[in-house]
Amino acid sequence: MAQSESAAFAVVRAVSEQRLWQRHMVIARFGATGRGGVNRQALTSEDIRARKRLLAWAEARGYEAAVDAIGNLFIRRPGRDNSAPPVVAGSHLDTQPTGGNFDGAYGVLAALEVMEAADDAGIATERALETVVWTNEEGARFQPTTMGSAVFAGALALEAALATTDCAGVSVEAALAQMLASLGVARRKEFRFPMTAYLEAHIEQGPLLEAQRKKIGAVTGIQGLRWFQVEVRGQEAHAGTTPLRSRRDALASAVAMIAALGESMHDENDAVRFTVGRCEVFPNSPNTVPSRVLFTIDLRHPERETLATLGDPIEAICRARAGGCEVKVTETLNAAPTVFDPRIVELVRAAAKRQNLPSIDLVSGATHDAKFMAQLCPSGMIFVPCAGGVSHSEAEAAAPSDLAAGTRVLAEVALKLANS
Amino acid sequence: MAQSESAAFAVVRAVSEQRLWQRHMVIARFGATGRGGVNRQALTSEDIRARKRLLAWAEARGYEAAVDAIGNLFIRRPGRDNSAPPVVAGSHLDTQPTGGNFDGAYGVLAALEVMEAADDAGIATERALETVVWTNEEGARFQPTTMGSAVFAGALALEAALATTDCAGVSVEAALAQMLASLGVARRKEFRFPMTAYLEAHIEQGPLLEAQRKKIGAVTGIQGLRWFQVEVRGQEAHAGTTPLRSRRDALASAVAMIAALGESMHDENDAVRFTVGRCEVFPNSPNTVPSRVLFTIDLRHPERETLATLGDPIEAICRARAGGCEVKVTETLNAAPTVFDPRIVELVRAAAKRQNLPSIDLVSGATHDAKFMAQLCPSGMIFVPCAGGVSHSEAEAAAPSDLAAGTRVLAEVALKLANS
Repeated sequence: MAQSESAAFAVVRAVSEQRLWQRHMVIARFGATGRGGVNRQALTSEDIRARKRLLAWAEARGYEAAVDAIGNLFIRRPGRDNSAPPVVAGSHLDTQPTGGNFDGAYGVLAALEVMEAADDAGIATERALETVVWTNEEGARFQPTTMGSAVFAGALALEAALATTDCAGVSVEAALAQMLASLGVARRKEFRFPMTAYLEAHIEQGPLLEAQRKKIGAVTGIQGLRWFQVEVRGQEAHAGTTPLRSRRDALASAVAMIAALGESMHDENDAVRFTVGRCEVFPNSPNTVPSRVLFTIDLRHPERETLATLGDPIEAICRARAGGCEVKVTETLNAAPTVFDPRIVELVRAAAKRQNLPSIDLVSGATHDAKFMAQLCPSGMIFVPCAGGVSHSEAEAAAPSDLAAGTRVLAEVALKLANS
Repeated sequence: MAQSESAAFAVVRAVSEQRLWQRHMVIARFGATGRGGVNRQALTSEDIRARKRLLAWAEARGYEAAVDAIGNLFIRRPGRDNSAPPVVAGSHLDTQPTGGNFDGAYGVLAALEVMEAADDAGIATERALETVVWTNEEGARFQPTTMGSAVFAGALALEAALATTDCAGVSVEAALAQMLASLGVARRKEFRFPMTAYLEAHIEQGPLLEAQRKKIGAVTGIQGLRWFQVEVRGQEAHAGTTPLRSRRDALASAVAMIAALGESMHDENDAVRFTVGRCEVFPNSPNTVPSRVLFTIDLRHPERETLATLGDPIEAICRARAGGCEVKVTETLNAAPTVFDPRIVELVRAAAKRQNLPSIDLVSGATHDAKFMAQLCPSGMIFVPCAGGVSHSEAEAAAPSDLAAGTRVLAEVALKLANS
């Protein structure tokens, strides 16, 4: 254990903030929008070029690359015992259409940095270290999100994923064949191959670390998520001639529903995430009483029971405020909360403490590939601050020192696991 | 007076329900959509063809036609004293893109029917009778609405109206030149020429006559109207990661504003018309906290003081519910209520009573050309029921007997005024 610790500390010291930052800037060129952000959607030529650049860095170190049938890319630094399951870390390289330079890329580059730092420190590990690049995490070009990890974990059928098409009619199957031909990686990986652990470093995409002046978020889980679509149907009528009492105003009813839902979501602890993000009004004319309104509900919370307590009454609350309108509530998504392995969370906390990095426990508000990996092996995430909590935006920003700090925590945790 | 009355009653008896209905069906062919409605927007070839048909009916009777500089068309049945100001009745022939067969056309055909019924009854009048077709009442192709009557009355500059373009870039000036060339009406009318009175028959476009089983609405005025646009600006944020207390959710604030405005508009008499008809949300994505909402307010009431009492606090109410958002309230329209000449209203009431037609006093919820005419001469309107109060719709419907009843009331009022 003392030897394992000293090996881990040596790798932590070898992490290079400068190399890590420069690589972010290199990857940021692939799909650069010219406004500080990137458009590097899954399986596009930009995505392929970013992966090729990563492979070039890996080849320079002599690491082996392999892909699975959905295009997830694994880069391996062998261990002393190559029959033992590897410690895998990574994230994704694809982005939103107006994405930033850190969402995803950071987790991949941090994982590679740990492997290279181990080389630089002359440290061999018992178990292999691997860096993974998951295919299509964002779900911007092809739905759903976290496609690669979902297929890997068996939560989404490969055939269904391959058959998905983008808005131009190109299938994942066709785009993937093009990527695999272009990458030229011959070695194959099986889905669900055994891993000792899965680790993912990521920018927080929320404001808490920055607001509390913390450097590390020890992520205890990923919130559960329920999506609803509410359709309110009333009656189109002339705004000038129709008395209010004889109206069936779909927008007036929708407003009453949204106000009542907002009250029902009140939470002293401010842990509930309740959002009506989309609202469409028909015919949407100033002097016509709306006949139809469609709105969405996005409800998240770390606890399954709270999601039930708050989410189950949504339909009844809407019905109670429908006035004379018809209302149809459809639950379009129900994803249970993810709880990360407490041993991994404790390793993250302990590494941050040892490195004098102020940390807090956090629950991820956004979803990540680690969600599916947690179903297969002990998994965890490390969050670092991003400016203003802004993400999925070209304005996304993170400090080189914060990225390096998160990578050093990742190095310590990964090395301890690889030598345990 | 006895002679004037007997002349009026003779014309009332000569009104032909069959001719009136058949002419509605003929005019309905110009721009027929094939779904029961019409698309006969202002100054289109359909509008021109409908006017030509009307002119053909007028020529068959030997009536004189004339146009003014905005294309308002006047058809004259001379009186014994042609130096006296005429009694003018009419409405418009243009429609909404998915309009009905009665909105506008009825007022024109009823006015022509009165003139022809006077011929058929062999009745001469002291003052001339005229039928007017106002240009572009609907404002669907060219804004604003009631363009022809507004220019006629001097409320809108001719040059401004002529310079208006449709969404294809065609100006009123160009479309009007085409219509005038096609109609070939050489005689010209001046704007604001003296009239003894202006009368307009129209379908109610509201549900009150039908609901109360009345046949005639004696229209006492047109509601005043105030339009507002409210822009709420918050901050885009990730629905999963951003705590509710640190959000500036533009939709949540807009919902609070609309709910509070609705409460502030409460009216025991149900005379207030308050409508939020349009609402746009940005970026309108289910998992993004809305950064911007734009909504409209349409507020109408027959009394100027009530429009002030209810409309003036709108901005303060919105500001009080803005939460952390910025709010900008812009009043885009403020049209004072119109009060029709009590003598005309009483003539309508009396004619309905004498003809055993159940009537009520009504305030028009929609605007009409009579609004501008009321600024120039004693004016009034006669409403007849339409099915379900539906208008501005291809489903618009009215009964032949109801249209004839309204025309008989128009005949009695017009003849009394023409012989007074």
